[in-house]
Parts: sequence; C-alpha cells; structure tokens
Amino acid sequence: MIVGIIGATGYAGAELVRILAGHPGAGKLALASVSRQGDSFESVYPNFFGYMPVTLESPERVIAASDVVFLALPHGVGETYARAALERGISCIDLSADFRFGDDEETFSAWYGKPYEYPELRRRSVYGLPELNRGRLKALAADGPVIVGNPGCYPTGASLGLFPALARGLAGPGTVIVDSASGVTGGGRDPSPAFHYPECADSLTPYKVGSHRHTPEIRRNMIAMAAVGGEAAPSLIFTSHLAPMNRGILSTIYLPLREPLALPGGKGGPVRFPGGEIAEKVREIRELYAAFYREEPFVRVLPPGTVAASGRVRLSNFCDISIHLDPGGSTLILATAIDNMVKGAAGQAVQNMNIIFGFDERAGLTAIPASF
Amino acid sequence: MIVGIIGATGYAGAELVRILAGHPGAGKLALASVSRQGDSFESVYPNFFGYMPVTLESPERVIAASDVVFLALPHGVGETYARAALERGISCIDLSADFRFGDDEETFSAWYGKPYEYPELRRRSVYGLPELNRGRLKALAADGPVIVGNPGCYPTGASLGLFPALARGLAGPGTVIVDSASGVTGGGRDPSPAFHYPECADSLTPYKVGSHRHTPEIRRNMIAMAAVGGEAAPSLIFTSHLAPMNRGILSTIYLPLREPLALPGGKGGPVRFPGGEIAEKVREIRELYAAFYREEPFVRVLPPGTVAASGRVRLSNFCDISIHLDPGGSTLILATAIDNMVKGAAGQAVQNMNIIFGFDERAGLTAIPASF
Amino acid sequence: MIVGIIGATGYAGAELVRILAGHPGAGKLALASVSRQGDSFESVYPNFFGYMPVTLESPERVIAASDVVFLALPHGVGETYARAALERGISCIDLSADFRFGDDEETFSAWYGKPYEYPELRRRSVYGLPELNRGRLKALAADGPVIVGNPGCYPTGASLGLFPALARGLAGPGTVIVDSASGVTGGGRDPSPAFHYPECADSLTPYKVGSHRHTPEIRRNMIAMAAVGGEAAPSLIFTSHLAPMNRGILSTIYLPLREPLALPGGKGGPVRFPGGEIAEKVREIRELYAAFYREEPFVRVLPPGTVAASGRVRLSNFCDISIHLDPGGSTLILATAIDNMVKGAAGQAVQNMNIIFGFDERAGLTAIPASF
Amino acid sequence: MIVGIIGATGYAGAELVRILAGHPGAGKLALASVSRQGDSFESVYPNFFGYMPVTLESPERVIAASDVVFLALPHGVGETYARAALERGISCIDLSADFRFGDDEETFSAWYGKPYEYPELRRRSVYGLPELNRGRLKALAADGPVIVGNPGCYPTGASLGLFPALARGLAGPGTVIVDSASGVTGGGRDPSPAFHYPECADSLTPYKVGSHRHTPEIRRNMIAMAAVGGEAAPSLIFTSHLAPMNRGILSTIYLPLREPLALPGGKGGPVRFPGGEIAEKVREIRELYAAFYREEPFVRVLPPGTVAASGRVRLSNFCDISIHLDPGGSTLILATAIDNMVKGAAGQAVQNMNIIFGFDERAGLTAIPASF
Repeated sequence: MIVGIIGATGYAGAELVRILAGHPGAGKLALASVSRQGDSFESVYPNFFGYMPVTLESPERVIAASDVVFLALPHGVGETYARAALERGISCIDLSADFRFGDDEETFSAWYGKPYEYPELRRRSVYGLPELNRGRLKALAADGPVIVGNPGCYPTGASLGLFPALARGLAGPGTVIVDSASGVTGGGRDPSPAFHYPECADSLTPYKVGSHRHTPEIRRNMIAMAAVGGEAAPSLIFTSHLAPMNRGILSTIYLPLREPLALPGGKGGPVRFPGGEIAEKVREIRELYAAFYREEPFVRVLPPGTVAASGRVRLSNFCDISIHLDPGGSTLILATAIDNMVKGAAGQAVQNMNIIFGFDERAGLTAIPASF
Repeated sequence: MIVGIIGATGYAGAELVRILAGHPGAGKLALASVSRQGDSFESVYPNFFGYMPVTLESPERVIAASDVVFLALPHGVGETYARAALERGISCIDLSADFRFGDDEETFSAWYGKPYEYPELRRRSVYGLPELNRGRLKALAADGPVIVGNPGCYPTGASLGLFPALARGLAGPGTVIVDSASGVTGGGRDPSPAFHYPECADSLTPYKVGSHRHTPEIRRNMIAMAAVGGEAAPSLIFTSHLAPMNRGILSTIYLPLREPLALPGGKGGPVRFPGGEIAEKVREIRELYAAFYREEPFVRVLPPGTVAASGRVRLSNFCDISIHLDPGGSTLILATAIDNMVKGAAGQAVQNMNIIFGFDERAGLTAIPASF
Repeated sequence: MIVGIIGATGYAGAELVRILAGHPGAGKLALASVSRQGDSFESVYPNFFGYMPVTLESPERVIAASDVVFLALPHGVGETYARAALERGISCIDLSADFRFGDDEETFSAWYGKPYEYPELRRRSVYGLPELNRGRLKALAADGPVIVGNPGCYPTGASLGLFPALARGLAGPGTVIVDSASGVTGGGRDPSPAFHYPECADSLTPYKVGSHRHTPEIRRNMIAMAAVGGEAAPSLIFTSHLAPMNRGILSTIYLPLREPLALPGGKGGPVRFPGGEIAEKVREIRELYAAFYREEPFVRVLPPGTVAASGRVRLSNFCDISIHLDPGGSTLILATAIDNMVKGAAGQAVQNMNIIFGFDERAGLTAIPASF
Repeated sequence: MIVGIIGATGYAGAELVRILAGHPGAGKLALASVSRQGDSFESVYPNFFGYMPVTLESPERVIAASDVVFLALPHGVGETYARAALERGISCIDLSADFRFGDDEETFSAWYGKPYEYPELRRRSVYGLPELNRGRLKALAADGPVIVGNPGCYPTGASLGLFPALARGLAGPGTVIVDSASGVTGGGRDPSPAFHYPECADSLTPYKVGSHRHTPEIRRNMIAMAAVGGEAAPSLIFTSHLAPMNRGILSTIYLPLREPLALPGGKGGPVRFPGGEIAEKVREIRELYAAFYREEPFVRVLPPGTVAASGRVRLSNFCDISIHLDPGGSTLILATAIDNMVKGAAGQAVQNMNIIFGFDERAGLTAIPASF
C-alpha cells in the first residue's frame, strides 16, 4: 500500500513519516510539500539521513499515486485535496480542524474565521477520536472512502479524561475546568518569537486564555460523551499553557461530582486534611475508569500512587490517566498525559488509518515510551 | 547590622545570602549550618567563591552574634531557635510553616503532623505577607522583637492573585481553583528520585494532588482577604505541578464571579467565541486590580496583551498578574508569576526584614528580572 | 528465546527492556534486580505500565531461566554472574567495564582500582564494538558461549569517529584530542548532587578532567584501529563534560593530519579565512569515511552541510559523523553523535546479541530518530 | 550622566539596560531602536514593566542627548554612529566586531566580508578587554573621547584562560585548541530555525566548524598576550558549539606545555593513570594563574576540586577558570566559564565604561551569580 502525506515537512508531517516508516502495512511513502517541492525529504530532516530517500512532490502527484492520504496542513487549505482524494476514491485523514466539526459550520467559522469550502464533504467525514467514534468510522469506511477529521492535541487529552465521567453520569451541573500545558512542538516548525529558545526555556506561561480554538472542540466532545449516558454536558473552561519542554501535553481536569461526599469543612472554615473516605471514593472511580477503557489499546488508567506525567508517554500513542479527588470530596480531579505529536496528532492519525483498513489498531504504534 | 541565617546551606538559605550580600543595610552575615558546621560557605556554593568567605557556625553562636535572624530550616525544627532569638531580644524571620498558622494549631497539626512546641510564641508572631499584613507587622515590631511566619511559595502567588477579587467582593459563592506549577528548586537541595535531572527534564506532572500542605495556608489567606470586604470566602481547590525549569511558579486561578455576564451559549449548546463585552469586563477588572495594588512595590498588574510568565520575574521579587475572563463571562481567570526562591521565599523574607527595621521596602530587592 | 537482564532497574537495564520488548527474536524477558527483588518492574518504571508485567527475580533464577543474559551492573560485580552464565553454557553481554580490557588486567586495575576476579574468563570474552570486532565476535561465538565486554558510551562515539582515519593512515604523529559532552542519563539512575535537576539545568561543565576511566579504553581502541593499517597510534587526550540534556553524546575530535595542507598563515601571523582547498580536502576525506563505513548499518557519514547533532540520533542506534578541517588545513576535526543509552549502551548490547545469534543486526534497532 | 544605547531591543541592548538600570553612576537612559522607534521599551520587554518607561528614539537623537553611547548593533552598521559620537565629543562602546581589529583591516575584511567605512576612526579606538588593555584604554581616554571595540563572547572566555600561560611562557610550539559551547542567547533575538526551541532543546551540536569569525580575534589576542612575555604565539584551532541552555559559555582549552612532565606511557602504549606529579604541577600552575589575576575584580581562578561551570557565573561579570593537566603531563587543560551576555557582552561593555569614566570598575556589576 502506498501512503501519501501532504505537508510532509511540518512537524506533524515528519512525525507521520517517522511512524509510518515502521508500519508493517505501509509500503512506499509518497511525500508532498508545496514549499520544498523537488527537494529531498532528508535534506529537510537530516535525522532521517539514509532511511527516507524520497523527493518531495506536488500534492496532486501524491494523491494520484497513493492508496490513502494524510493532510498535515494549516487550517483552511486542505478541503481541495480532501475533495480530490474522494474523487479518486481514496480515504483521507486530515490533521487540521477543517473536518472536526462536521455539520456545525457555524461553530467552525466563528472560531476559525472562514466558512466551509465544500460543505458537502462532511457527508463522508467523521471526527476521528477512536475511543468515541471507532464504530462510526468503521461503518462509514465500510461503504466507501472517508475523510477523517483528526482531533486536536488538547481535545484528545482532555476528552479521554472526561469521557467515562460524562458517559457514566458522574458529572454534576457545575463547570468543568481543563487546565492544560503543551510542549513547544505544539507550535509547529515555523520559527517565531514565541517559540524562540531563549523566550521559552525555563519559563511557563498561559496563552490565548479564554479564546483557544480547541475550546469548542472539547465542548462538542463533552456534549457527545454526556449524550452516551443520556445526559447534558456541564459547561467548560479551557486554558492552554506553553511549557519548557519539547513534547507532551499534561491536562489537569476539574469536574464537579453529581454526588459529592458530604464532608465537613470547606465553606466558611478551614480546609480539612483528606481522610480515608477520599481514598475509597478515588478507588471506586478508578475502577469505573479502568472498566470503561478495558478494551482500549492506548488508554492507560494508572494504578494507585502513580500520577500522569507527560514524560512517561513520550514518543508513544498512549494517553495516561490518573484519578484524584479534592479534600472536600466534591470535585473529581483528573490528570491526563499524551505526546502531543503522537496521540495528539500523527499517532492518532495512523490509528485511524489502521481502523479504516482493518489493520491491528496498534500497527506502527507499539513503541513503549522511554521515560528518560 | 549583623544578619544571621540558620540553615544557610539549603536553597532558601543560599538565596538569602545572595540577596543580603547586596543589601545596603546588612553588614556582616553570620551563617549557621548543622550539617556543614566548620566548613566554608564557599566550599558548599562555589558560585560565591571570593565573595562570601564565611565559616559555617552553630545556630547558637549565630543567634548570639546577630541583630536579626532568618530560619531557613525544615518544618518543625525551628521553634527552639525562634524562642532563643526572642529571649535575646532579636526578631526572627522563619521560612518554614511553623509560624504561618498563628493560633490555629489545629490546622497546622492536622496538615503537618505535629503540635506546636511553644504555642505561646504565636503571641509575638505574624504571617509575613506584606501586602496583607504590613500594618500588623509594623505594629507588632513597634513594641518589641517579632517572629515572622514567612509565607509558602504557592500561597504567595495564589493569594496575591486572589486578594483584590476577594476584598472587593468580585467572588461568587462557587469554588476557586488554583492550578499552579513550580520549578524544581521548590523541592530543595537534597537529591531524590523526584528531582533527579532525567526524571524531571522534558516532563510535566502534578504531585500531592488534593493533599498539598499549602492548601490550608491559601484557604486561610482567602478567608482573611474576603473578610477585608466583609465577605465569606468561596471554597478552594489547589493543585501543584512540577515543571521542567529551575525557578518560578505560575499559578492559573479560576474564580467564579458574583455578577457574571449573562452571555448566550455555554450550558447545553456549543461555546461561543468571546465578544467585545469580554474585553470590556477584563479592562474594568484590570483597573480595579491596578488601583488595589497601586502602592505596592512588588506587585505588577500587567497591561492588556501581556500575560504573566514565570520567566519574566526570574531572580526578582515581583509578582506579575494578568487578568482574563472565560468566553462565557462567568469566571475570572488570573495568571500570577513569581520566582519561587525570591518573592516565594528569600526575597519576601528580606522584604519583611526591611519592614521590621524601617528600611526602604525595596532595599536589596531592586533587581530587574532578566527574561533570557 | 528467553532473554535475561540482571540489573534491570538501572537506566541501562530499563533501556534494554524497552528495546528488547520490540525485538522480533526475543520472547519472554526474565528480569533481575538485587535491590528491588520481588517487586513488579512496572512499579519501578510506570512508563511500562500494562506492557511489562514482570516480577523482578534473583540473578541466579534469571541465569537459570535464560538463553542469553545481559549484565547491566556497576563495575566489578558482574564476573560471578558471567562465570555462572558460561557454566550454564549461555552467552553473556556485560555492559560494565569488567570485560573491556581482555588480557590487559594491569590497565583495568590501574584505572578501576581492583584486580580481575576470574582472569581466565577473558579466554571467552571479546570487546563488543561490532564495527571493529564483528568478525572476532562471530568466530568466538561459533565455538561456544561468549562474554561480550560492551563498550563504554564515550569510547563508542570517539572510536567510531577515529577508526577510518587511524586505519587508513591519515593520522600524523601529534596528539589526538577528544572533547566530549554527555547527557545526564550517563550518570545513571541514582540521585546525587551532581545530577540534581537545579545543579545540571542551564549549565555546562567538564568533569574528571584528565582522569576519566574511559580514557584507557579509547586509547586501547586507537591502538587496535591504527594496527589495522599497520601504524602506531598517536597519543590521546580525552575530556568529558556534563551537558543539560537527557540523552546523547557529542564528541568533537581533533586529529593532526600526517599530510597537512601547506597553507600560509597560522604560526606567527593571523589566521586566514578558509579557502577552497579546505572544502576539497574535506570532500576527499568524507569519501574515504563513507567508503570505509559503506556496509555498516548504524554508522552514518553525514553529507556536506550537515553537522552531527546529538538530538538527531535520539533513541536510535546510529552514530552520526561529520567531517571538518581547521582553516590551516593541518588538523582533521570530526564531530560524532550517539545516543549514550542506545549505541552507547543498551542498543549496542542488543546489536552484539544479534551478531551472536545470527539475527539481522538491525533487529530491534530499526527506530528512526525523532529530532524534536 | 545620560547613557545612550543604540540597538536597545536586541539581547545585548536589553542586557545593557538591565545592568545600567542598577548602575550608581548612570542617570537617565536614552534608548534607540531603528525597527521599533516610537514604541515603549517595556512593550518590547515586558519583564521591565513599570521600571523602564522609556520611548525608543532615533539613533541621532540618542547620540545628541547622551554623555556616552553604547552600540549594540549587527556588524558593519555602527561606524557612522561611532563617528557621530566622536564628532560630538563623547565616547562610544561598540559591541560589534567593527572596532576589534584596529589597524588590521585586512583580517577584518577577510572574515567579515567588508572593508572599513572610516578607517581613521581606529586612531581613537581600543580593543576593550580590560585585563589586557586597561592601561591603553585609560591612556587613550585621558586625552579625549574613545571608541571601544568590545570583545566577542568566545574570545573573552578563551583569551582570559590563555593569557597567563602565554604571557608567562608556559606554552610550547604546538597548537592550542579552544573547544567552546555557548547558550542560545548567543544567537541573538531574531527567531530562526537554528534557535527554534524544538531544534535546540535536548541537543548539542558544533557549528561554523573551522570558520567561526571569532577565530581571528582569539588568534590576535594570543599574539598580543604572548608578546607580553616576548614570545611568539602557538597556532590556534577554535570550535564553537550550541548547547541547550539560555546563557553561558564554557571553553575547554588545550595548551601544549613548553616543559612537559617526562612521564612514561602515552606514545605506543596504554595511557597511564594520573599520578601525584600531575597534582603537583597543577598546583604550581594554579598559583601562577592566581598571582597573575590577583588584582582583577572579575577573574576567579578556582580552588582545587572546583571545576568551571557556566551555571555558576550566570548573570554575573565573572570569568571562572579551573586548571587541569592531561595524565601524560604534556598539555595544560583550562576550563573557563562566563555569562555570554554579561562578561561576554553587556557586562564587559559597562566595565569599559567604568574605566573610561573612572568609576569603580565593579560599579553596576556587583551581582553574585545564582547557581540555581
């Protein structure tokens, strides 16, 4: 099978190349880059020297040569290629936001500042969070080529942490807060002051507070996940931070419980030291989470005493989740860790390819993370 | 004036030495270390080579020789020295938690696992957050030697962010969430697996979720700050994280507003893109904050477009605050940045010394941060 | 095939587990740890959670159960296990220095401070730098179990850079200088002041200058490599540095040429800007290097314009080499980059296992490095 | 005194602002930026917020308003401003290379690719390495305004390490090798692929091998320093590296001794473990170095057991030097550490200003480095 990648010189594109180079089902790779067309891929990424002697071609030639195509492009430029792929009868996995919102063009255009180019393409598109939409993706792919709207990096880590709580009715009416921090690769390959080494190193800062484009995507997932349990979703506040590291997203999630423990302290008085009932409640919720994700190859509900750490999923497709509770017993605190370039982008895209083609879902994604 | 430091070989102690070496009012430093007594301070910290040729003495000798003494010791071991200082008639600034809780021995012992050794010492102690207690500290110091319970690092950044909102009645009944991350110096100088370079580098992780000892200290400050406006304080959830950087604490604070903007969207439906009323409300609250802190030498309410970043207060005594709002207009989002070793420890301790002795409060603390 | 690892909880041991978990020829892993015997390996390394549910056993049981055994132990404690392995008739790959010096017990004891315990074991041992000793290893393994003295991390990067120049007679009589810097994982897993995050971060420093134990190993390799061309080896100066990064060794090597370009400038006068003859000479030497390593799967002689960078071999078994010349044309400057934990330790050890058992030499080592 | 800075928005310029803000003799600062003229300096560097409310003016206005002017500009654009300063009768300290080569226009133009614009300006210029040229600078400044060619960052660390050995005749005829690594701030403030966070982090690489423009400057200094002892200078090889840290330059220098210890081993045979005569020789040379720099306020010859580390001079104007010897006793190994932005740029420029105006040479430069 020939696998095409359009936008192969960006970080997500290069990560797709790295992962697919070790994929048993992927044969030759066809790589496209508008900016570097005609150059050797290895000249752009010397770390591949000797192992990816491929010349960067035009998107059109790559689509014409491929059995499936990945789009690793900026938002708002991929619809033409997706359309061309469908017309050729091949499936397309888009890593931008263009196909994440399905019929909800209003939300997309409000947050991304442009309308859909070919709205009708959404009839063949699905939001590619496998843990939520595996069935829909399989069904759609069964009767023809599909377009996968591959999830954003923050929404992946946040949604996988929230899914069991929302689907099983643990969430109360309050507001869910998702506080996330990402490594600098999340900013992509283009140099800019914000990602200049001396500006990032040894510093932590929030950005796009209250206006990050991943907010509506997380919100939309919450609604879909709560609907699994026939519930309405609580409201959402999402904040993103830039952390001085290369890879990884750590999300700390605060979810008010529908049935809080009625513990003394809190309002008015001092906060009490957590007692045994907290540990007991945590154990119970952890078991619910572990059962919920039992069949998932890439979601790991961590054992007691282990806390999610971005460094422990580095270069893997895992999403690690640890379960905690505030000392008052009213709020579930979830920590989730992913590699923003793998489960948050290229790895999840390959996972979607595996589902479409009926490969083992872990094909090409079996790496165990190195923690140091 | 001779300034004594007990526990000079720990990170907080060494930072006190660095700051006091440039303090116009501090003459000779007398340094004590139990573990390294008799050694030269420079042999422990070669970065001081040639500029701090002091031999480490016993705590007793340092107290006997000093006009004021800093205690940079683990929790629960300093009361004896504080008592000795008072008996000698000199003031004492304690960087541990032993004197942060005043009469509330119950909360201290519940979270720190030990009772007070000399409860009566609290009659001469004050919690040393100058922006909250400057007046009380001055008054107490006016009639004799005092013991300052120097604030914890997280409580400093969190409380300064919350103070105006709580004192001016902006806070609604809900729960305040403080999500903070600290550099590794916060873990102190003793090597351990958690702070081993390869375990920390390129990774972000929460720790002590729901049970961090700084929780009751932040909570207690919230109660005191809300009382300034005659209000009861909302409840608190605090989470600490370890970030791959040397210095700095970035706290992102979520405070439900008493008078939220009544904006469409949120509950049930998709989240809306923030409109102009958000910017207007942010402007209004920023002005309230700027007015509240107008006279404070170390609190900087940042201008529009500037977000608090831990790297921008590095090695300074500043606390930077940026003001934000969620797109629904219901929750105030505050970002505060401090250097955990300066405003979060040694710098604030020197600020308290300046208040006690009537020095310019900025004496020894005039450094402008280097952002790279 | 059952593969045993003794010392599985150290960094080199854990890296062996990570690599062997993806090795097509390795079946079950048997893991031993004296300090953590009885514990689960996953409890020591949560990054393996769910994928390495193995209980740590005694070394004796692991040797009894295995078809080959890796020793990832401190220097001077492995000979007993190596002996036991040979007696059981299985080969042993030792990552310590105990078997790197063969018959030269004098040099070993002078630098490591202890004699051999069982000198006779060296009759079955070989120094496992495949590019130098592949043939000897194959031959020895052909007639029975062997002990591989797996090379040190610095000697691997330094020796691979020097081999073609020494074997092909490029080296003049002068002194070769090897100036290397390693990531902090080179210091191992035990916390200590030198590897405490705040001591390492944002700082670069030499260590063990003039007395690093890898010096005699590099020197011994130089003699063996020069002998391939019938030459005597130039003398050696080696300096190691600690760099603020997790993984990687970058070695910059200065080798005086036997036939320097006779260029004006240098002695007495100012240094001249490099001219075209420099580029020509570099091209010529690069071709010699490329030809020398043409058949090697893991040595990459980089193309013009690409400089060796430790980050570009991260998590791979590659050794990248770039070729340079001083502006005077008298000294060859080589830059080599390896991942100290892979080609510098566990990866090379697996490469040796592949040679012993006739596996494809790249088995388990096919990962392409991620450069970000 | 009004101090002008042209190029205030670059890293060197901003560092000058930071240092001069704490200088007792500097009154108002006048700041110029061509690119950001009319903007507030604080809007470019928010870390100064509230403490440097200065509007960026034109270079002409700054020269007209100042009593001394610093030029923090790219190479080859400052001569016009220097000329204007002299014409106004004020001294000028240029941080570029334009005035580092005095009469040797040939070497400058060969390495920097352009001729001098106003060669005659060199009649009033001096190379501003105070430890070498303090006397010349004082003398020249005594009879009128001067232009200081402030040294490059690498040449400062390398030259201060070599000075005593060259001036006291320790150097043999061989080649001196200077192997240096710099933090990323050395690349300046403009974003580029080479200094993009994900490209630099966790990686070490050489750059401009054999062609770095600082080579002829170091070489020229070696000739001048050897001439102090009436000697000819050995030849030079210099290699620069980019290290994953913000600040600091660590230089490891290899200098063949004129009178090597005649120790067995080395040529032909294995390298021997260093014996007592090595320690004795190191002690002797360290004493020579300590005596040589006894009067220097910023050069620290480190005591036995302490090795130069870039992190230990962070944000200070110190140059730390540690003395070592190869095990064969033939080559002196020097490690020097500076902060590239302070002693390597802005700090040394202020030191030169102090000399010109007769201030205490440490004025504004008294900060003790923080090592964490």
